[in-house]
Amino acid sequence: MQNKFISFEGCDGSGKTTQVKKLVEYLHSLKQETIITREPGGCKEAEDIRHMLVTGDPEKWHSKTELLLMNASRHEHVKRTIVPALTDKKWVLCDRFYDSSLVYQGIAGSLDFTEAEYICKFASDNLEPDITILIDISAEVGLQRSNRATNKENRFEKKGIDYHNKVRNGYLQLAKTYSHRFITINGEQSQEDVFKDLLQALKDKDIV
Amino acid sequence: MQNKFISFEGCDGSGKTTQVKKLVEYLHSLKQETIITREPGGCKEAEDIRHMLVTGDPEKWHSKTELLLMNASRHEHVKRTIVPALTDKKWVLCDRFYDSSLVYQGIAGSLDFTEAEYICKFASDNLEPDITILIDISAEVGLQRSNRATNKENRFEKKGIDYHNKVRNGYLQLAKTYSHRFITINGEQSQEDVFKDLLQALKDKDIV
Repeated sequence: MQNKFISFEGCDGSGKTTQVKKLVEYLHSLKQETIITREPGGCKEAEDIRHMLVTGDPEKWHSKTELLLMNASRHEHVKRTIVPALTDKKWVLCDRFYDSSLVYQGIAGSLDFTEAEYICKFASDNLEPDITILIDISAEVGLQRSNRATNKENRFEKKGIDYHNKVRNGYLQLAKTYSHRFITINGEQSQEDVFKDLLQALKDKDIV
Repeated sequence: MQNKFISFEGCDGSGKTTQVKKLVEYLHSLKQETIITREPGGCKEAEDIRHMLVTGDPEKWHSKTELLLMNASRHEHVKRTIVPALTDKKWVLCDRFYDSSLVYQGIAGSLDFTEAEYICKFASDNLEPDITILIDISAEVGLQRSNRATNKENRFEKKGIDYHNKVRNGYLQLAKTYSHRFITINGEQSQEDVFKDLLQALKDKDIV
């Protein structure tokens, strides 16, 4: 088996974190060394920037600022966490990567898509995930689930339903554009069924 | 007289802040409304990012991260401070603008210049200073002067002489590339003589 860089994407409340944990258990059962990481954040330096992004008033930053801050934290994360782990032959499971920036700041934040993509590729030194797992749920279900959770890092959740509909549609658009690496899973089923579909899709692609 | 956007550039210790103050006094004597601002910073949101940039270990951030953080703060500064002042027909005197990013992160930080410039233009919504005043001093003189000052915001000063030589040479290179807007003044003379040269250059260009 060859170690891979797998990103997980989806609206807040889609259950990404649960699926990351299930996949890491599966990989451990196959004796694969694996790290779990997340964005924004994933190393001390990037977590400092995360705090500015996920707390406070929803209108605190303009979309371009948000994109630049996300990518500042991404660059530290790529250099300090992701690339060293891949070099050490570890699997990297990442809760959000640059598709989140393309969708949240680019599409839902009404930025020019080409410009947003340029900055994401600059910050990630052109590192692309091998596989991106999109756990697709409606914006309504996502917001209901994330509002039930007690979460102080709720700046994005507070942005309202129109924004979150754009996020969901943006993800579906990206899954078409980058069909070579996207796997889309229906997230409105039980966690067990989501994981069953996810694992089958990875097996079909000879990833695990 | 037409209000203008004037940026001041130069190594730390070049005396930019003093010259900004002298020019604002001159403009006030001509009854011109003027604001003084600075980068990184220039509005509350951008000052929060400034703190992460100018304090701490000199190797705290990779060059790309530094460039992205500088430009995140720049975007807030442009949207919240610079553009509203220019729209109100005020003069804007800015202690550092994107040429600092091109020199400190781009040239001295060994980034690809075209990429650095792309990100600066993205963050500033293509707003370019009408005039950029470069106060040119050697790196040695700059570091001597700034080490004499008591300054807790000294992350860049700690980067050492090689880095600051690249900064100085980078500025001289930019002054050639953007000769339509750069004015280069010898900063190794008295503050009065620096201002005399600066004012004469602005008069020669029909700016004041």
